[in-house]
Amino acid sequence: MNMNFDGIGTKVEIAERVGDHSTMAYDLFAMVCDDAARLGAEPVLIGSILDVNSLGNGDESFVQRIVQLAKGYIGAAKAANVAIVNGEVAELGGRVGGYGDFRYNWGAAVVWFGNKNRIFTGKEILKGDYLVGLEEPGFRSNGISLVRRVLEDFYGHDWHKHGFEKSEKTVGELALTPSKIYSSAVVNMTGGYANEPRAKIHGVAHITGGGIPGKLGRVLKHSGLGAIVDNPFEPSEFLKHVQFWGEVEDREAYRTWNMGQGMIIITPEPEKVMSIAKEYEINSQLIGQVTEDKSITIKSKGCFKEGEDLVFSEDKK
Amino acid sequence: MNMNFDGIGTKVEIAERVGDHSTMAYDLFAMVCDDAARLGAEPVLIGSILDVNSLGNGDESFVQRIVQLAKGYIGAAKAANVAIVNGEVAELGGRVGGYGDFRYNWGAAVVWFGNKNRIFTGKEILKGDYLVGLEEPGFRSNGISLVRRVLEDFYGHDWHKHGFEKSEKTVGELALTPSKIYSSAVVNMTGGYANEPRAKIHGVAHITGGGIPGKLGRVLKHSGLGAIVDNPFEPSEFLKHVQFWGEVEDREAYRTWNMGQGMIIITPEPEKVMSIAKEYEINSQLIGQVTEDKSITIKSKGCFKEGEDLVFSEDKK
Repeated sequence: MNMNFDGIGTKVEIAERVGDHSTMAYDLFAMVCDDAARLGAEPVLIGSILDVNSLGNGDESFVQRIVQLAKGYIGAAKAANVAIVNGEVAELGGRVGGYGDFRYNWGAAVVWFGNKNRIFTGKEILKGDYLVGLEEPGFRSNGISLVRRVLEDFYGHDWHKHGFEKSEKTVGELALTPSKIYSSAVVNMTGGYANEPRAKIHGVAHITGGGIPGKLGRVLKHSGLGAIVDNPFEPSEFLKHVQFWGEVEDREAYRTWNMGQGMIIITPEPEKVMSIAKEYEINSQLIGQVTEDKSITIKSKGCFKEGEDLVFSEDKK
Repeated sequence: MNMNFDGIGTKVEIAERVGDHSTMAYDLFAMVCDDAARLGAEPVLIGSILDVNSLGNGDESFVQRIVQLAKGYIGAAKAANVAIVNGEVAELGGRVGGYGDFRYNWGAAVVWFGNKNRIFTGKEILKGDYLVGLEEPGFRSNGISLVRRVLEDFYGHDWHKHGFEKSEKTVGELALTPSKIYSSAVVNMTGGYANEPRAKIHGVAHITGGGIPGKLGRVLKHSGLGAIVDNPFEPSEFLKHVQFWGEVEDREAYRTWNMGQGMIIITPEPEKVMSIAKEYEINSQLIGQVTEDKSITIKSKGCFKEGEDLVFSEDKK
């Protein structure tokens, strides 16, 4: 048994701008539950610490927003298949900054159980194993400060209100896209704590800060192997526009954002993995393979060097 | 198994003012561990979420303060006899407000184990049981906004720098007095998860927000009994001055602050309880007794009505 802690950082500011707080819990639970699932463990119990400037003393507009948070909390717990325990809500006034009159910082802790036969050590990974990417439509909660900076430079102070030509959503709504929670599906694949695995899984990388080079690199480290990612997901149109406006080079973009896949499953049985993902309504595809060569090579789907090979040799940490 | 979450609210501002961050973890761990111990449970694993404006990028003055936080974290975990797991540190810039250039909000989660034979239901409490108070020299983390308001009104903006005639410490240092962590002693008394109880304990009240009327009242609720607290601890000179300057009536003071006892042990064996408290270097005294009358009556040690009976009939929540 152990615990994971994480928060959603400055992504909250996007919710504050858009005025929609119903999806923040999905981002929060994705961070902690998926980080447990990637170990081969099973998240079971979750609680959170919500620091808020004010609960509004019954003011209707505050009540509505708190209800949004709470509904998201329940929905996300269901999606992650974890039980909620009492968390903490602290009203801290000016100690909580942000945008507008309802501001908060939100972190969570999840208790997970690991079965010692299933916790990944890295040594399970073999040359030739396949990489199955699980699709992520948004940024999750990573690289958000850069996203905000780019959008403010491009659109100005009220960037979130602008429309985006390729979507009916506003720029703010697109930036707010909630994280996919993969943990239920991954626990189903690995067996989690108590069940039989439904597919042979050799490792799982949760693509958060550091991107594919950082996070897949960390998982591969103890195997002494590398990977070629020759068929990554196409990032969303919106993500590519943010990359373009910010003049973020493809290498840097792959190091900062998930670029279309929030989880990578390392497996000799990719068909089984993709079939389980489908049961959980998660798009997946074969994105690459484990190689003897220790570097990670990504055939870019970024907006500046599409189709070119980006080679990362020193991102394993 | 279950979790408790809590934070230290605006007490952090006092540490920011005084420039001493080494005791904050004692306040933090006291809140969550003592809340587990009061149930009859045993806290075992703790982690925290630290939201900080900046980690200072190697700047020496930041490093020193982070080291203070970390040392306190380790010391407090030792005092509470809990294991530390990885927590989360989030650098959130302007989303974290406060005093000065190093600002943070801090919450923690503790995992506790409860033995079903020992978790208190309230029904264990009997008429005639004794109340043993465990001394608390400071405010713990409760009623701090009021403390800060009173001190700012009395001393002005830089209130923390002033001296206090009855002490060598500054006003800020006195307000910062770290919480006593009682959980190790209380677990030793109750037996916690796995050990035999060393004394018959019928209930435990952790005196936080709501004070004795609120928190002792909550514990007594299911017993249908009340209490007379005819010999409470004397609050510190400093606390009484804050009460006086703020013109906080005794009733209100007892509802807001612990007024000298941070924990109340309900027991038919007060001598045993006081002897165990002494082993843990906690001052304790017999402060009262459980009564058939449902109200809670406190013989005040406040600064306005010392010696008078304060009767609380409706604070049980």
